[in-house]
Amino acid sequence: MIIVMKHQATPEEVQHVVNQVEARGYRAHVSHGTERTIIGVVGDDRPLEDHHFELLPGVEKVLRVLQPFKLASRDFHPEDTMVNVRGVTIGGREIVVIAGPCAVESRSQILETAFAVKEAGARILRGGAYKPRTSPYSFQGLGEQGLELLAEAREATGLPIITEVMSPEDVPIVGKYTDIFQIGTRNMQNYALLQAVGRTSIPVFLKRGMMNTVQEWLMSAEYVLSSGNSQVILCERGIRTFETATRNTLDINAIPLLKQWTHLPVFADPSHGTGKWDLVAPVARACLAAGADGLIIEVHPHPEQALSDGSQSLKPERFRELMESLRQLVPALGRTM
Amino acid sequence: MIIVMKHQATPEEVQHVVNQVEARGYRAHVSHGTERTIIGVVGDDRPLEDHHFELLPGVEKVLRVLQPFKLASRDFHPEDTMVNVRGVTIGGREIVVIAGPCAVESRSQILETAFAVKEAGARILRGGAYKPRTSPYSFQGLGEQGLELLAEAREATGLPIITEVMSPEDVPIVGKYTDIFQIGTRNMQNYALLQAVGRTSIPVFLKRGMMNTVQEWLMSAEYVLSSGNSQVILCERGIRTFETATRNTLDINAIPLLKQWTHLPVFADPSHGTGKWDLVAPVARACLAAGADGLIIEVHPHPEQALSDGSQSLKPERFRELMESLRQLVPALGRTM
Amino acid sequence: MIIVMKHQATPEEVQHVVNQVEARGYRAHVSHGTERTIIGVVGDDRPLEDHHFELLPGVEKVLRVLQPFKLASRDFHPEDTMVNVRGVTIGGREIVVIAGPCAVESRSQILETAFAVKEAGARILRGGAYKPRTSPYSFQGLGEQGLELLAEAREATGLPIITEVMSPEDVPIVGKYTDIFQIGTRNMQNYALLQAVGRTSIPVFLKRGMMNTVQEWLMSAEYVLSSGNSQVILCERGIRTFETATRNTLDINAIPLLKQWTHLPVFADPSHGTGKWDLVAPVARACLAAGADGLIIEVHPHPEQALSDGSQSLKPERFRELMESLRQLVPALGRTM
Amino acid sequence: MIIVMKHQATPEEVQHVVNQVEARGYRAHVSHGTERTIIGVVGDDRPLEDHHFELLPGVEKVLRVLQPFKLASRDFHPEDTMVNVRGVTIGGREIVVIAGPCAVESRSQILETAFAVKEAGARILRGGAYKPRTSPYSFQGLGEQGLELLAEAREATGLPIITEVMSPEDVPIVGKYTDIFQIGTRNMQNYALLQAVGRTSIPVFLKRGMMNTVQEWLMSAEYVLSSGNSQVILCERGIRTFETATRNTLDINAIPLLKQWTHLPVFADPSHGTGKWDLVAPVARACLAAGADGLIIEVHPHPEQALSDGSQSLKPERFRELMESLRQLVPALGRTM
Repeated sequence: MIIVMKHQATPEEVQHVVNQVEARGYRAHVSHGTERTIIGVVGDDRPLEDHHFELLPGVEKVLRVLQPFKLASRDFHPEDTMVNVRGVTIGGREIVVIAGPCAVESRSQILETAFAVKEAGARILRGGAYKPRTSPYSFQGLGEQGLELLAEAREATGLPIITEVMSPEDVPIVGKYTDIFQIGTRNMQNYALLQAVGRTSIPVFLKRGMMNTVQEWLMSAEYVLSSGNSQVILCERGIRTFETATRNTLDINAIPLLKQWTHLPVFADPSHGTGKWDLVAPVARACLAAGADGLIIEVHPHPEQALSDGSQSLKPERFRELMESLRQLVPALGRTM
Repeated sequence: MIIVMKHQATPEEVQHVVNQVEARGYRAHVSHGTERTIIGVVGDDRPLEDHHFELLPGVEKVLRVLQPFKLASRDFHPEDTMVNVRGVTIGGREIVVIAGPCAVESRSQILETAFAVKEAGARILRGGAYKPRTSPYSFQGLGEQGLELLAEAREATGLPIITEVMSPEDVPIVGKYTDIFQIGTRNMQNYALLQAVGRTSIPVFLKRGMMNTVQEWLMSAEYVLSSGNSQVILCERGIRTFETATRNTLDINAIPLLKQWTHLPVFADPSHGTGKWDLVAPVARACLAAGADGLIIEVHPHPEQALSDGSQSLKPERFRELMESLRQLVPALGRTM
Repeated sequence: MIIVMKHQATPEEVQHVVNQVEARGYRAHVSHGTERTIIGVVGDDRPLEDHHFELLPGVEKVLRVLQPFKLASRDFHPEDTMVNVRGVTIGGREIVVIAGPCAVESRSQILETAFAVKEAGARILRGGAYKPRTSPYSFQGLGEQGLELLAEAREATGLPIITEVMSPEDVPIVGKYTDIFQIGTRNMQNYALLQAVGRTSIPVFLKRGMMNTVQEWLMSAEYVLSSGNSQVILCERGIRTFETATRNTLDINAIPLLKQWTHLPVFADPSHGTGKWDLVAPVARACLAAGADGLIIEVHPHPEQALSDGSQSLKPERFRELMESLRQLVPALGRTM
Repeated sequence: MIIVMKHQATPEEVQHVVNQVEARGYRAHVSHGTERTIIGVVGDDRPLEDHHFELLPGVEKVLRVLQPFKLASRDFHPEDTMVNVRGVTIGGREIVVIAGPCAVESRSQILETAFAVKEAGARILRGGAYKPRTSPYSFQGLGEQGLELLAEAREATGLPIITEVMSPEDVPIVGKYTDIFQIGTRNMQNYALLQAVGRTSIPVFLKRGMMNTVQEWLMSAEYVLSSGNSQVILCERGIRTFETATRNTLDINAIPLLKQWTHLPVFADPSHGTGKWDLVAPVARACLAAGADGLIIEVHPHPEQALSDGSQSLKPERFRELMESLRQLVPALGRTM
């Protein structure tokens, strides 16, 4: 933390800031420039708040030197984290594709989709039982019945399953069925929920908040990690921008940036990232080319009948074509599939 | 809902869309333009999903005609809603100011602040007991002890209290103490929480999500209203934009827009909306001039010692000056205070 | 400028950076923290580029201490700048309202509007002769004929005039007629144009770019000021955000922020800032309450017939009502009108 | 264009709108829904302004059915446009890479870079002679001397050249030297400039405005096309969002979207799109995987000495590695290089 003094700050004001820094148990390092005096705070200053100093007389602003996350950082954990889910390794050399419908709607729908995505090469089955919907009048998911149908599809196909949990109260019931907890974009900063899944030993698939920075996202991962669960997978799913031609703007830059900043596996969701089924395949390829460890893709046997997110869902035959194109692509990227 | 066909759509494709519209119980109205054929869907189409039609062969896109919210809309409820909290009327001609610290930190801090803001003219006391913090290493609030201190401050001053509830599990305990539930910006789309407070009869102060449109915000109000609680107050608190000189960008336009679209009272939070104490007063005045029914302001006796949000907190004497300037202003706006 | 070294930076890397700083004529001040070593650059480092150091081995990042603008800054010019235009003082205690149509369309339209806005209390007449339009198929303005009509309206009413200049080539012809050059939002970073108007002695009304920060905006002002023209007026006109319910999001925070950072007069444009005529009046009042020195308002005798921007234009009678409400407001703000 | 009437609109108001539609030479098609009456405007309504109807009594809003661009649209020109520059075909099956320094700084710098990028496989040389810089105190380019050095590098290597033109006045001088005009992000809506290059027969490389939608971008292309120049290449270079960890957010979705909407070639600029040299290679690969027809990459022999954009420039050896990885990738995408 660096404290920048105002142009007109007096020596007394500088001394007062130094005293405050020392009173909090840090060392202060004063440096006089031609236009500004700056004071460096020596020590791990993550617990300090900017305003402890920003509001002192003569202070202009506070600059942060350290990233605020620790457990999620490569500085503290240089090797890649791998997550093992019923024999599927996430975060290794192999690309892992998760696929399935936005929501579990019926027994036949989820079974039909599960077999189709398995045959095309997906390694994990997705499906929502509890759905966060903008409107209270939209379909809200089948609840526990949906979880049972997912478990049945796992039984039938051997694919591990992932499903969203929306509330701390639901962690026990969802955890009874799922192999991976999905935390959705609207809950990226639902701290009670992050702590609740952080106290389990089930892997957590943490989607980026649609208006959150990469730094805030890693702080949310830090909530899970610091609660004791080290199995976190990050998923870029598009951010909100001024562009309205697509549902979201998939932040392709975030993928290689995360691979530098953190040891956690990085996935991408081109279905939500674009919102349009006919953009999913090219953007899926782009995400792998940028370094993603895997993808999550919405597949529905009859998208025009889907109870949610039909516009961005692939039909099984389109998904098969996509998987073939990915199999052609990954060797050129030094990966397997 | 209007379905726009592609340039090259065939008569069979048009007929197929018409059939699908009718199969869902609506009437279809076909209109042939020079470049496009369009199909109007006649009936209350709020329950329909765009993709039910967007994915049919020959369809280019779907345009929405109706706003998706109903109970929150002035169309359905033309007169202003007023909320009464222990004798304080919110949403009437009188401007109501809520003030207090970001977080309850100690008995002396909350009592000192409560008396100071009351004396300056605040009508309701704010203070957080459960705090949503970006970092798991930051102060997370005093929990129930904080609620007890708030209740004690209410007892001592007679001011009704407002405090944040972060999780459905906490609704009973927080509801035992508070006069108004605050839903914070990160929880605007926490639907389980919205439904939980919607099932109580305690007024709900719904802050705008920093990443959410006015329309989505009113859909979140709709969650509370449709759960049976008609006492909702909206609070503009700034949105996230590319500008980093201020913590958020207070969306001043949203205030008069909401007064047109909805009957619910509209508040503004210039403390979070700016993030800088020295911008709070002019922006507070601006919010009232734009038509806000009230303000919520952070006040702390020693901001530089605050455990959170010190940078945007006013000292009691600054708050007093602000209240004096507001009292000069409101008659010119046809309001009282 | 502060250079932050990586966690693992070696003493040789630190020394190399110090050498580079000194080679460019600055002093380096090294400070060893517990997790990072930082190097302060002593001297006016505005001419330095971040990458001169960011790319050296062992460097993590560069932090800036100084604002990049100088002539526009209150540090260097503490008193308010006032701009005098044919007897109208801009930037003083008196609020100045500029009004008129988006575009000059005909002799009768501009004369009718000029008389109407003068009568209502406007002090300066606006009107576009060269129009920047998103579509090449839209009305592009009357060109020099429009300038002649503006000059005639000035003659008839005594109101000074302001009109937009879009290209350095047009500076002489527009300068022959206008009292103030308007630089539009799309040209805020048209540096050739900024320099061209900066070489004249005609005041410059610099609108904020719709996706530019306040800092970048002041750097554009710096282009004009450093070209020799000290008569710059800033105008907040809304920025582009994710919200689509209004045309732009007027950044109310920017108004008091600018009054702190710069000595230049600050105006606001609630017509473009909202894009909707029925939001103009409340937002206009808000801008003055936030500290703006004046307003620019679009007025058209028949908005539904306007060749551009009709949706946000006030009819003369609405403008008169707005001016009356402003006259009630400004005494409560310590201003006159 | 569809005109949506208010809930309470009267039959007289509907009839008045119909009359106005017909008075402007269009046919009106009225459709009565359960909550709203809508009026379809039949004919090419691109020349109409929304406000011609939005402001009529009883009208709620206007919805647009047609995209506003014509010449740039695949509807009107289904086959891909290819641009030939001194024997290099842009927009065909072959991926074309443009490379070179941000700015031409000296004879040795541009020649050294030109030979290096040619050897690595670049087909076109970039280099700025006129530089748009945020600060008036930064290096502004060598001007015509820079153009001469570029021409000399072309002579020496046989590579065609591309360079930015910033002002209509400079079109003749820049056109004397360059093979392609680059229009920079800040000038995407500099209409005088678009028309000036549109009147030449030199290809135009049109970068996306950092604040502009894809639709606005195609409208800017429409300015060039409708001025008579059909040789337009689009270049995605990142947009401005709330994320500050990277300089811009490269909009990967825009690449496949453009390939659907327009026949013009689509390039990407991962140097500006990320702003960090160590993100350039993965994002470059992603852009090709998403369907880009080519890339433009900043290369500098000594980035830490560069006069601009050093942080995002590759050293020649890094560029060579990138080109090798691209050559491995493109066959898997069905392209050549």
